[in-house]
Amino acid sequence: MSDQQTRHKADVRKEGDRELRIERVFDAPRDVVFKAFTDPELIAQWWGPRGTETVVDEVDFRTGGDWRFVSRDSDGGETAFRGTFREVVAPERIAWTFEWDGMPGYVSVDINEFEDLGDQTRIRTRSLFHLPEERDGMLDAGMESGMQESYERLDELLAKQA
Amino acid sequence: MSDQQTRHKADVRKEGDRELRIERVFDAPRDVVFKAFTDPELIAQWWGPRGTETVVDEVDFRTGGDWRFVSRDSDGGETAFRGTFREVVAPERIAWTFEWDGMPGYVSVDINEFEDLGDQTRIRTRSLFHLPEERDGMLDAGMESGMQESYERLDELLAKQA
Repeated sequence: MSDQQTRHKADVRKEGDRELRIERVFDAPRDVVFKAFTDPELIAQWWGPRGTETVVDEVDFRTGGDWRFVSRDSDGGETAFRGTFREVVAPERIAWTFEWDGMPGYVSVDINEFEDLGDQTRIRTRSLFHLPEERDGMLDAGMESGMQESYERLDELLAKQA
Repeated sequence: MSDQQTRHKADVRKEGDRELRIERVFDAPRDVVFKAFTDPELIAQWWGPRGTETVVDEVDFRTGGDWRFVSRDSDGGETAFRGTFREVVAPERIAWTFEWDGMPGYVSVDINEFEDLGDQTRIRTRSLFHLPEERDGMLDAGMESGMQESYERLDELLAKQA
């Protein structure tokens, strides 16, 4: 168990040439964390880096269902992300595809395992890319800092719910 | 140059744990072969194994455009395939994503290079998968024999056009 004062941070590392492995602990039970990933009203409150507003256009939360989020920045600029849920096993595992409107056809997969640690939950994510340059391009585009911010927003949402 | 009697066959080999490399020669100039991959009326005449009928529902042939084919077997059963053109550089290269309706979210990428051999054309394809089991599952499902039949049908179409 981490100290209450500890700020959690996602551990991000490259695995092979086309994959990332990410681990992050959250201070809430697994059911609560899982719900924050699946409830459209909750997703809209934490998804995306600070300064962006996320509109959940679609979340068909089942294996084979589609999702689409529109992200609005402070200048009113909009961009959209979408994908398909490849696998949904509540409250243990969600795998989805991820595609940004700006690069159609560049599809990554996130396989997320929710590990029950009692009062905490560890999410282990495998992010899979088709080519090394897709993975490295995502990192170069600031994916990691965006994710860290988004997860901090999720920490804040979970604290409010506690 | 191959003998007129030679029957071409695609060479299919595994590369690493998530990729296939395919090479196939066709007895027609590059412009002609490239057109057979891009013209909906021609695609419908060779795409898919023997005994199936392909209806080209959509071919938005440009970078970022979508495609969707419906395949009908002799019993009238239908299944659909779809994807996005990631890159279109006529007459040299086409890269598309490939997804079968039966397994939504399992997206592979084919990067096809059309090599000009004068009266012949060589297509080199990299097929990229997110996980080893996706590649091996595609092979187990008979992807190679289906592709060989489809390419034989393309040989026949090209011979008719000559």
